[in-house]
Amino acid sequence: MPKIDHIGIAVKSIKEALKLYSGLLGITPAGEETIEARGLRVCFINVGDTRIELLQPTREDSEVSKFLETKGEGMHHIAYAVENIQEYIDKAKTIGLKPLSETPKPGAHNTLVVFMHPKTTNGVLTEICQHQH
Amino acid sequence: MPKIDHIGIAVKSIKEALKLYSGLLGITPAGEETIEARGLRVCFINVGDTRIELLQPTREDSEVSKFLETKGEGMHHIAYAVENIQEYIDKAKTIGLKPLSETPKPGAHNTLVVFMHPKTTNGVLTEICQHQH
Repeated sequence: MPKIDHIGIAVKSIKEALKLYSGLLGITPAGEETIEARGLRVCFINVGDTRIELLQPTREDSEVSKFLETKGEGMHHIAYAVENIQEYIDKAKTIGLKPLSETPKPGAHNTLVVFMHPKTTNGVLTEICQHQH
Repeated sequence: MPKIDHIGIAVKSIKEALKLYSGLLGITPAGEETIEARGLRVCFINVGDTRIELLQPTREDSEVSKFLETKGEGMHHIAYAVENIQEYIDKAKTIGLKPLSETPKPGAHNTLVVFMHPKTTNGVLTEICQHQH
């Protein structure tokens, strides 16, 4: 059964956002990393069996900068972890969802990922990911 | 330690939205209920130790109808389950977050709830809830 791997939240400042997660909820982040290729700094916060990923742009032309400009801070995507990601891509097309690629792409932390177009998933940018053990 | 109680997603049609959750992810909803007072039909989907709540308006003047009009379908709020909700309300104010009420209000399923103003929680409407056993 799939589980929610993470919930991505676009923020202007990870430090400011931690007021809620560390300050109020008392959860210490599990780690942070910069993904230069995507102009992104990511902070991971484990909550129960899932995690919050705070996404802060590191330059103006990054995808998250564009998201912040048009939509402002807020929820960016939800990722579900599955086995056999290719089966999910194939199935998605048969039921009217629109995968953004025909085959999975390499993601962070040794994963394979595919996104579903949010117009076909009720406005929620939906990531399907498979952890490669 | 708090956990994510649920992720609320505003949808025009629960039936359409289930293409993703049941159709692709293979998760059967745990239940549905109509909350007349809020003009809302809610579908609960258990995923790991948390759940998705699909929120479909049942009339034009409901809060979710207004959300759909202005923002369209998509993620609506994230709820964290805690013990001693009043402590969280009091603490929130001391660290610059803005609870929408001074004391918790009755929520669905025998809970007490408070929302934090999304301007103080990085654009994410954040619910803190306490289950009353």
